This record gives sequence, structure tokens and C-alpha cells, in this order.
Amino acid sequence: MSTVDAVTAAMVVIGDEVLSGRTADVNINAVATACTEHGIALVEARVVADDEAAIVEAINALRVRVDYVFTSGGIGPTHDDITADCVSKAFGVELLEHPTAIKLLLDHYKDPAQLTPARRRMARVPAGGELIYNAVTKAPGFRVENVYVMAGVPAIMRSMLKAIFPTLRGGEVVQSCSVRVDRGESSVADALADIQRQHPDVAIGSYPFNDGGRYGTNLVARSADLAKLAEVQTALQRLADG
Amino acid sequence: MSTVDAVTAAMVVIGDEVLSGRTADVNINAVATACTEHGIALVEARVVADDEAAIVEAINALRVRVDYVFTSGGIGPTHDDITADCVSKAFGVELLEHPTAIKLLLDHYKDPAQLTPARRRMARVPAGGELIYNAVTKAPGFRVENVYVMAGVPAIMRSMLKAIFPTLRGGEVVQSCSVRVDRGESSVADALADIQRQHPDVAIGSYPFNDGGRYGTNLVARSADLAKLAEVQTALQRLADG
Repeated sequence: MSTVDAVTAAMVVIGDEVLSGRTADVNINAVATACTEHGIALVEARVVADDEAAIVEAINALRVRVDYVFTSGGIGPTHDDITADCVSKAFGVELLEHPTAIKLLLDHYKDPAQLTPARRRMARVPAGGELIYNAVTKAPGFRVENVYVMAGVPAIMRSMLKAIFPTLRGGEVVQSCSVRVDRGESSVADALADIQRQHPDVAIGSYPFNDGGRYGTNLVARSADLAKLAEVQTALQRLADG
Repeated sequence: MSTVDAVTAAMVVIGDEVLSGRTADVNINAVATACTEHGIALVEARVVADDEAAIVEAINALRVRVDYVFTSGGIGPTHDDITADCVSKAFGVELLEHPTAIKLLLDHYKDPAQLTPARRRMARVPAGGELIYNAVTKAPGFRVENVYVMAGVPAIMRSMLKAIFPTLRGGEVVQSCSVRVDRGESSVADALADIQRQHPDVAIGSYPFNDGGRYGTNLVARSADLAKLAEVQTALQRLADG
């Protein structure tokens, strides 16, 4: 077993458009993938509405449980973007115009007259917050303590993830191996349970698929210990060939 | 404003594979779309790990808050499928083999010898639960009170949604209209906020997009009241043309 403390994270997706089905979220997968690559265990993701009480509750419930909370959505210039207000409420601090954010926006829009009240909204950061760089449209995200507040537009979200992940404490990177079985999962389930019992330190999952009408199963083993992972891979391959 | 009580729902996606990034969830969007079509407001979705404490906590937190809870994932035959056990724990009832589920599986596998211990796991239902029909692979989902437990494989999940939605109490169906503006959302934000203030009963959202390098904004209005929605659509169109 690992002697390194696990580093954990949670995500809050903010947006009525995801809960109405209008938009299919892709940011959970982007955060999940980035976490796995950096050895951070994403333990929960929540999608909540553009609703102050829901956003504040989700942030406050999760930020005390995990090392990092990532949010996506609700930091644009329009009236329905209320994430900055909610993060301020969650931390009980003021929401202030951040001078560097104002400067970034002024550099972007050139003419100061273009910095309309709506655009100035994007420079509001809870007191004590630090900016997160946005390579796409300049309007920054921000971090307050362990809460990283990012945009919902996927390209901007990915740009912000790229900016923050090098600054995060990583854990042991969990490696995985996948073995394909061309049978339904119920036909390997008993043998698979035996392999799991023999290798309690390796997490083994079974994922059925349907490939053009034929049922099959991907057996996936995950561990930070490559030697143990190799043992399990051999056992899974034997099961697949059997 | 609507005089009909809103019907609410929440979703719990169960699966390490979504939190590791290996699988991109599509079931939240399927449930969200079905809810919207039936006039049910999906108020939250959570993704949790294949972990008993996390699953029980999510189900118990949400089932008291909303009219319907939908879960996806973890009802297969393998050792990592623990959703039925967790729903039993959440309700404090026994997990029993359901005779109709056994019959469905026997009909499917023909030979009783094929009904292995692993496959029998798929017939376990919390006491008092009712089966949810699975048109794809027969192994059923189940309902306990207001919690609907479904498979994670998207085709099976959709088949189960089709089985249950006609049995649910729907609310007023919220209609939406969308107006495309070929400008960034910050250039319409102030005027949009005015429209929202003038029409407090209609929810107006602003969704920026990038279409081949050009920024634009979809303005989306949502209401069950078509007359009010038409008024807002006219205002949004004027803004888009302006």
C-alpha cells in the first residue's frame, strides 16, 4: 500500500443549462482526467443550478472535505453569472474589483470606454483571492483558499486547468491497465471476484460494452504499484484467454 | 407565475470510471433531457465513487429533498457493483432475491446452470422494491420509494428511462426559445440584464460559444408561460438585431 497521503479533489459544475439537458457537460471529464494524471483522487462531482443557496452549500460542503475544489461556470459578464458572488458568500468575505483583473480587461478591450459595467463584473474577486490565467479571452478565474473558480466554456476551462495544475500538490499517480474480454461481464464475474480477493490492494473494475451488437467487457485494474498491477494484468489476461 | 407545484428530481451517477476520467458520463444529459420533456426540474446531479459510504450519503441526502432520485451505475454482476447493497443500507431494509427478477434472468439464460452466483446478484432488490424493465439485457433495475436505480450502460439506462417516465408525475413543461447573437456576451450583458429585470418570471440565460474562431452568444429564455416567453423572445431578437 502507498505510504503517501492521498491528495483529494471535488468538482462543482454550475449551470442551469446542464441540468435542463440543453448542454452536455464535458468539464467533469476534463477535470477527472487532469486529476488522474497528477495523482489527485477526484472523489465527487456535483452539478448545481444557477442558484445562490445551492452553489454556496455545495462549495462549503466540499471544501472542508477535500484538498482542492474546482468549479466551472458562472463567471461571465451576464446577470445569470453569480459564481463570484456565491464564493464570496461561502467564505464570508467581500467581493472586490481586483486591480490586476481590471488591467487584464483594459489591455484586452484597449479602449477604456469598452470596459462596460457588465465587463467589469468579470474583474470581481472575493477578498484575498488570486487570479487564474485565461489564455483564451483574458477574463480571469480565481482561487480562494482551496477553491479554484473557472469558466464553463470548455476551451477556457481547459486553459485554466493548464494554468493551475502545475501549482497543485500531486499524489502518487495511479496507473491502470485494461484487458478486453469478448464475453459479457456476467461470464467472468466469479473469476474476477477471486482475482480481486487475491489482490486487495489493486482496484479492479468491470465495464461492459456493446461493440456493434457483440457484448464484451473491459477489465480495468488501477494501482500506484506497478509490480502489483503487472501481477493483476497477467491474471486478467489469463481470464480473458480462458 | 405557475400555480402548479414544481416536480423536482436529482441524480446520482455511481462509478469510479467517471471520476477517474476513463469514461465520460452521458447519463446526466439523458436524465436532464427526459426531465425537461416531462416538466420535472432536475435540481442537482452528483457523481460519486464505487464507495458504500459515499453512495449511501448521496442517496439519503437527496431523496428527502426532491420528488424523484435517479441513479445510474453499479447494478451489474461483478464484485464492484454495490449499488443494490447501498440502497438497502440507505433505506435500512434487507436485500432479497426478487422472484420476478430470477424469472427474467432464467428466461434470458435458458439453462438454469447458467444462472451463476454472479448473475444471481443482478436479481437482488431491497425489500419492498419494484422492478424496472430492461429491454436490452433483461437484468432489471428497481425502485424503492422515490429512488429509481438504473444501469450505467447508456443504452440500458435509456431503456429504463423509457420504462419509468410514463409512470412519473410530471409538472408544467418548461418551454424554451433560443436567440443567437453574433457578438460576445459581454457586449449584450447590460441590455440583457434589463430584459431580465422587466421579465422576472422568465429565466434568461446567456451561453457564449466559439464558432470557428468567431465568438457569439446564445440567449435562452425558459418559462412554462408561452405568452410571456413570446414577449421575451421578441425583446431578445431586437437585441440580437440591434
